[in-house]
Amino acid sequence: MGNLAVVLLSGGLDSATVLAIANDSGFDCHALSFEYGQRHNIELDCAKKVAKALGVASHIVSNIDLSVWGGSALTGDIDVPKEGAENGIPITYVPARNTIFLSHALGFAEAIGARDIFIGVNAVDYSGYPDCRGKFLDAFQEMANLATKAGVEGDPFSIHAPLLEMTKVEIIRRGLALGVDYSMTQSCYDPTSDGKPCMCCDACRLRGAAFAEINLPQG
Amino acid sequence: MGNLAVVLLSGGLDSATVLAIANDSGFDCHALSFEYGQRHNIELDCAKKVAKALGVASHIVSNIDLSVWGGSALTGDIDVPKEGAENGIPITYVPARNTIFLSHALGFAEAIGARDIFIGVNAVDYSGYPDCRGKFLDAFQEMANLATKAGVEGDPFSIHAPLLEMTKVEIIRRGLALGVDYSMTQSCYDPTSDGKPCMCCDACRLRGAAFAEINLPQG
Repeated sequence: MGNLAVVLLSGGLDSATVLAIANDSGFDCHALSFEYGQRHNIELDCAKKVAKALGVASHIVSNIDLSVWGGSALTGDIDVPKEGAENGIPITYVPARNTIFLSHALGFAEAIGARDIFIGVNAVDYSGYPDCRGKFLDAFQEMANLATKAGVEGDPFSIHAPLLEMTKVEIIRRGLALGVDYSMTQSCYDPTSDGKPCMCCDACRLRGAAFAEINLPQG
Repeated sequence: MGNLAVVLLSGGLDSATVLAIANDSGFDCHALSFEYGQRHNIELDCAKKVAKALGVASHIVSNIDLSVWGGSALTGDIDVPKEGAENGIPITYVPARNTIFLSHALGFAEAIGARDIFIGVNAVDYSGYPDCRGKFLDAFQEMANLATKAGVEGDPFSIHAPLLEMTKVEIIRRGLALGVDYSMTQSCYDPTSDGKPCMCCDACRLRGAAFAEINLPQG
């Protein structure tokens, strides 16, 4: 048995690739997904398919309703923009989302004896989210090792973000090499009522452009 | 209207005092409590009473089930110790609990435009929890200001822990001076089936000793 890892799994393209990378690195992966009041709940069905297809030691879906305080187009009543990326931090930003996700991953990891946490953030195509940058992850890791029993007892946690400096095309190429079936994943912020991607939000645009660049269908 | 603050409110003695202090400092306080699978769920009834008695702008109870991964006597099947404090980090430690609570408070704060977050941690009577120390709070604040839109745009968050260096007696005296009715609060880790404190867990012992020292009944 290899070392244990907790992998944040959204059901999108990036986190599926991260799970494949963590598996390939020899970790026994425990996947963690969230039902957080997101519009794009179809993601959770994708997450379950991906977890099963790639193989995980366990998959927990944790219910944490962030829509209770609104403030984002991904959880609230604000419309998801469809006119292309704007400058600055977009309205699809969910306050403190990755901090909250990583905090739960940290608790899960400590409880099961894992010291490695994987997250699919990306600083290249990141659309301006502050919590997708390396210096945020470094600060989180430092905080985590002051916050936890394992950390203060000298058995520290590592936050891994293997996609951080990769382009979307590089991510897809890496995943394909590791056998990821991207037809199981969905990236759309605002799917249609029958679960199809809208094809015009930022996430659909980035994904579509990347698959087009490598002359592949969307998965 | 004063500045907005988010106050973590458990229903225990410490957080009730913190809410009174935040009120007294002129903040319009939004209280945040968690249903996290704790044994001592009577706390939430206490939190509601305290929020109402002290006056809050809003009180949100957020459901985040941490018992899904166990690992603590406060959420799992492990018995709560009743034989007095032991050395080291106790079994009532919940992995990453204050990190998770503060992360949710951060998201709530950013969504409502608050920049001040209050938490009732205490480094004197803290029973050895790593996430009750000043250097954890400093690291969390630094991380928070890299994680959030407000933080990176130069409108930073402050984490306030006004009880950090106070003894339990000092906390109770401060709260009494601010009009806190401690009969509304409960600190017990393992209440009886009818919601009464067990009087022998660490939390009951610390509370009992402090009230005895100032010759008052338990509230």
